[in-house]
Amino acid sequence: MQKFDLDLILKAQRRLQGQVVRTPLLSSAMLNDIVGADVYVKAECLQKTGAFKFRGAMFKLSELAPSDRNKGVITYSAGNHGQAVAAAAHQWGCPSVVVMPEHAPKIKQDNCRWWGAEVVLYNKDVEDREDVTQRLIESRGLTFVSPFDDPLIMAGQGTIGLEIAEQLAEVGASPHSVWLGCSGGGLASGTLTAMRAKCGHFESVLVEAEGYTKWQTALQKGEPVKLQLLPKTLLDGIAGPAVGALPFEVLKPVQPRTEVAYLEDAFQGMRAAFQYLKLVLEPGGAAALGTLIREKARYEGKTVVVVCSGGNVDPDVFLQAWAN
Amino acid sequence: MQKFDLDLILKAQRRLQGQVVRTPLLSSAMLNDIVGADVYVKAECLQKTGAFKFRGAMFKLSELAPSDRNKGVITYSAGNHGQAVAAAAHQWGCPSVVVMPEHAPKIKQDNCRWWGAEVVLYNKDVEDREDVTQRLIESRGLTFVSPFDDPLIMAGQGTIGLEIAEQLAEVGASPHSVWLGCSGGGLASGTLTAMRAKCGHFESVLVEAEGYTKWQTALQKGEPVKLQLLPKTLLDGIAGPAVGALPFEVLKPVQPRTEVAYLEDAFQGMRAAFQYLKLVLEPGGAAALGTLIREKARYEGKTVVVVCSGGNVDPDVFLQAWAN
Repeated sequence: MQKFDLDLILKAQRRLQGQVVRTPLLSSAMLNDIVGADVYVKAECLQKTGAFKFRGAMFKLSELAPSDRNKGVITYSAGNHGQAVAAAAHQWGCPSVVVMPEHAPKIKQDNCRWWGAEVVLYNKDVEDREDVTQRLIESRGLTFVSPFDDPLIMAGQGTIGLEIAEQLAEVGASPHSVWLGCSGGGLASGTLTAMRAKCGHFESVLVEAEGYTKWQTALQKGEPVKLQLLPKTLLDGIAGPAVGALPFEVLKPVQPRTEVAYLEDAFQGMRAAFQYLKLVLEPGGAAALGTLIREKARYEGKTVVVVCSGGNVDPDVFLQAWAN
Repeated sequence: MQKFDLDLILKAQRRLQGQVVRTPLLSSAMLNDIVGADVYVKAECLQKTGAFKFRGAMFKLSELAPSDRNKGVITYSAGNHGQAVAAAAHQWGCPSVVVMPEHAPKIKQDNCRWWGAEVVLYNKDVEDREDVTQRLIESRGLTFVSPFDDPLIMAGQGTIGLEIAEQLAEVGASPHSVWLGCSGGGLASGTLTAMRAKCGHFESVLVEAEGYTKWQTALQKGEPVKLQLLPKTLLDGIAGPAVGALPFEVLKPVQPRTEVAYLEDAFQGMRAAFQYLKLVLEPGGAAALGTLIREKARYEGKTVVVVCSGGNVDPDVFLQAWAN
């Protein structure tokens, strides 16, 4: 397995040149006024397939031996990673299988199928996604594409951090704090590694969904944890069951702060992105922004970067953000 | 008055460097599949103040004599131009007045006030916006910032065309057709002038709101027209009463095709931008995209550029796109 470090992220950036969207780093005077801080939003919902996951999947598939790639790839995913693997496989012209919980949003299932993936649904309450996936790997000779626990995936997501560093430099800003939604830890480990190499010292904040505060527990315990209880949540993009072992190794010495996002925080983030940035965010993608708004008192006059991803949300869920 | 030409647009681009967002040119494999063409969307709703209007306003104010600028600026606007002038005035630290119809969306009125502008409302049915504005110019010594009928405004908007040309070159594409929402003609005259200089030959399509098909009439008659009847419409961003005299001079030899956008077309564009591009568009900003989708049969296998701006829409109007 390759070593995860800045060099691997730089390699990913060269490899992905022209393959991924260099998403804009947006700001809004009105949003800054609401938060009382200089807020820069990395609009990663504008990435291909609507989420950052496409970066990691493209880099991973580019590194497979052609013979393995041609046999096909498989992953499990609440949705955005599945779409990304399906789209990357489509780009490479190889088969893909996506294992998903039965209650994954319909838009995410449909999108995987649109890219040509075979979607295998399983019942979260009685089956384990790893077991379902392992059976298919063995029976079909597929290569597993981890959502986060892979140096190549982490490096692909880390290209976001390199871009943020470049974009902050263009406007002469340096971050006091960097906020990201976090579940397995692929986005956070990659992005924060790149930014710590390029942006000097800053506070790192991982935002977790209510009921899925795995990193809070893992960082306290000093080891990765896996949840047994998986409550239903609209923040599905950041509601995986496990802290990634490799992301944990990378993030443990960083000692990030953790915050819990409640549904109302996600809705607040969605409304702010709609009103001030003209971006569509799914609840899990808006959780970091909404939680920052809730916690704004700590950040008066500071420069804060927020990664917002993804934007794959059914209209009826989107509309709920304005329902009360 | 300055001459409007490519050189003035290039000057505007140099002047606006770092002052405006270089908005991304987005594409979506799914949208391409729906339309049956290669569609590139200039996501100008991500511009500061949520619409392209900020470009023209910033360039215009940068060219005013400081003594005039300090006395203040005034404009009339269905909203997006008003916000842009208010924001540009705020940037320059000078007073601004925005004359708006009473029924302009509340978000647009609020946004102008937020930027420090004085909002003067008038009754569309009994007053003329030019008369209301002229009285204030005379009584206060303000400088008028035209929404479109000014070479500097047209040149500012034209920087969109330069960016599109650069962005198309990056992906090795050249346009068969370019679609824009059109009312006064500032965006279309600027953007098409820049693109015709940089992108070779292509078809130009102006999309007008139902009940506001001024360009269709003007191009047939061979002279600018002004509407007497101003029906209520949700496509307020492209529902001004008049064809601009200068934009008409520029666009007449271009002989653009015109298309009428109905409310359902705008809603279709809003839904497509939401689903495939993760962008929030107001009805007038989505009209060109939605009408292209309606007329897709003409464009099979072609490369089509669509300018999408703006994104200033109240949530209750946005939600109507999914109401039926």
